Amino acid sequence: MSNAARFPAPKSKSESEEGIVFAPRFDANGLVPVVATSAATGEVLMLAYMNDEALARTIETGEAHYWSRSRGRLWRKGEESGNSQRVVEMRTDCDQDAIWLKVETAGADAACHTGRRSCFYRAIPLGAAPGGGLSLTFVDAERQFDPETVYRHADAAKGTLKSSE
Amino acid sequence: MSNAARFPAPKSKSESEEGIVFAPRFDANGLVPVVATSAATGEVLMLAYMNDEALARTIETGEAHYWSRSRGRLWRKGEESGNSQRVVEMRTDCDQDAIWLKVETAGADAACHTGRRSCFYRAIPLGAAPGGGLSLTFVDAERQFDPETVYRHADAAKGTLKSSE
Repeated sequence: MSNAARFPAPKSKSESEEGIVFAPRFDANGLVPVVATSAATGEVLMLAYMNDEALARTIETGEAHYWSRSRGRLWRKGEESGNSQRVVEMRTDCDQDAIWLKVETAGADAACHTGRRSCFYRAIPLGAAPGGGLSLTFVDAERQFDPETVYRHADAAKGTLKSSE
Repeated sequence: MSNAARFPAPKSKSESEEGIVFAPRFDANGLVPVVATSAATGEVLMLAYMNDEALARTIETGEAHYWSRSRGRLWRKGEESGNSQRVVEMRTDCDQDAIWLKVETAGADAACHTGRRSCFYRAIPLGAAPGGGLSLTFVDAERQFDPETVYRHADAAKGTLKSSE
């Protein structure tokens, strides 16, 4: 099915911003960035991408689907790890080129392929010019699962996995 | 100053994910997507982009700077609207190609150029195939300011403004 068949073409600025027709704006690669937050805690879990098919499937099924840029294929979140994401609420932004999902995570309650709850487990220090090099600080970085145990397949071995697939 | 001078080049997968060196991974356009959430409520306010200069200035000053794709220039959030964003915490994700800012918004407490607190003021309905067209629902869509009053300049008239600049 073509992109055009799944969603209407993007509208004018005023219709995009103030209208009720969902007409998402995909980028040059046919993708839209997606922020997933925990419906329970509000924490940002991950930033990923959807193509039109992932977006359509997520809407239809209420289960988060993404487009894996590293593997070049559609990916139902948790299809391998079991850490699927049930969508509690889904929103688009003013110009309809970004998506926000509030999700409940099944399984080990981990969104990140490294085993952490969130992919955002390191803080960037503020206040210094970055020229001299900046050291990250681990925060909320406890692993909920062992990625070595969960991903026992070729993709993991090749290091091409992203997030908690 | 070149990109290379501002930040180290991206590291290997394992160093990116488990190391403490901040070596952000910019996309083909030299940008990295940024999620800004309210430090007070956890709400997702906006999704925007930074180039290396916006990222460096944000880190140095603790005030959110972005790259405006529509205007092709660096932009200090709130430089026109007064709705600047003080960064309370800044994180990067597993492969260092996305940024999360927790911010306090000054001024009218609005991140969106339409006058709303968040750019994500419309919900996408779940459960139906999108083929037949999907109607968005306005949520948390009260305007905190009148964009007609705040943006009295050529860019606003041309409709090229994004977010609450």
